[in-house]
Amino acid sequence: MPLVRIDLVAGRTDDEVRALADTVQECLLDVFAAPPGDRYQVVTEHPPGRLFIEDTGLGIERSDQVVVIQITQQGRDREQKQALYAALAERLHERVGLRPEDLVVSVVRNEPEDWSFGHGRAQFLTGEL
Amino acid sequence: MPLVRIDLVAGRTDDEVRALADTVQECLLDVFAAPPGDRYQVVTEHPPGRLFIEDTGLGIERSDQVVVIQITQQGRDREQKQALYAALAERLHERVGLRPEDLVVSVVRNEPEDWSFGHGRAQFLTGEL
Amino acid sequence: MPLVRIDLVAGRTDDEVRALADTVQECLLDVFAAPPGDRYQVVTEHPPGRLFIEDTGLGIERSDQVVVIQITQQGRDREQKQALYAALAERLHERVGLRPEDLVVSVVRNEPEDWSFGHGRAQFLTGEL
Repeated sequence: MPLVRIDLVAGRTDDEVRALADTVQECLLDVFAAPPGDRYQVVTEHPPGRLFIEDTGLGIERSDQVVVIQITQQGRDREQKQALYAALAERLHERVGLRPEDLVVSVVRNEPEDWSFGHGRAQFLTGEL
Repeated sequence: MPLVRIDLVAGRTDDEVRALADTVQECLLDVFAAPPGDRYQVVTEHPPGRLFIEDTGLGIERSDQVVVIQITQQGRDREQKQALYAALAERLHERVGLRPEDLVVSVVRNEPEDWSFGHGRAQFLTGEL
Repeated sequence: MPLVRIDLVAGRTDDEVRALADTVQECLLDVFAAPPGDRYQVVTEHPPGRLFIEDTGLGIERSDQVVVIQITQQGRDREQKQALYAALAERLHERVGLRPEDLVVSVVRNEPEDWSFGHGRAQFLTGEL
């Protein structure tokens, strides 16, 4: 159920984009309590000069490889979120070479009633999920 | 006031995109308590391979026509959301041939103070709405 | 920390897009309690016919220059939001000629635990911010 928006600068190959998205999904499955098949990702590539990402004075040096991940979800707690951030940084570095400095993540919460995965039904309310 | 993001794979004609967006708006007007003119839609078309949409094990078969609709709104209850999901699935199928299997909807809630529709004013707070 | 999505119709120059984004950021710094360097903006340009923006019956006349700004943040109150809307309308008009009629703003709230600005850490929880 998390709906994941991944925004990045154009320039990666299709395979690289897929590997990045696959790795994000793997983290959701492993440390964010997403069940199998729970994948809803929208990847948007932007021309140069359309992402403006600084560092809130944290001394983080960004590159043009910066990736912004926004996750809409319900039900996870603080510990799960922290585990997700750590897993994303570690695995995206290992698998696709993303610098941990180039990863920005933001989470938004909604409720079970806020999801319909198909057929016009709210599967969390119907008992299907 | 709902702000509606519609993400889909490129390939539809301009008229098809408009018909899809028009139908979404019609559902908001008819079953989601949107007043006339309350239309705020952002449609983004993606190249193939940028939407990764599975089914949470629900047995829903997606096609490359899959549409993801994310709605930011305030004030609707559970019944209205369920009515919206059902109306979207039914009418998008009737009007633009969207398979009910290819419709994913996610809702996020904010508050009346979170909207400015123009002129830098928060119209829900000023009494204009 | 606000994550700011700016959606607009293609046609502005790179310099115009940058000036618009810079002005939005300046408003965050001046009236929305964003600290220096707290800039996280994703600008998406759309072809004509992909933004459908009406006026909720408010009598606001849109043009094809309309700009939709969606801000995900935590911690600001109603007064700060109203000050932001007003500042955005005023300064975008002054600096980049945006008609106040062409500015739509929507805010979404999350929590301190919902942010990781880099390195896989939740900097609001670790004490770094």
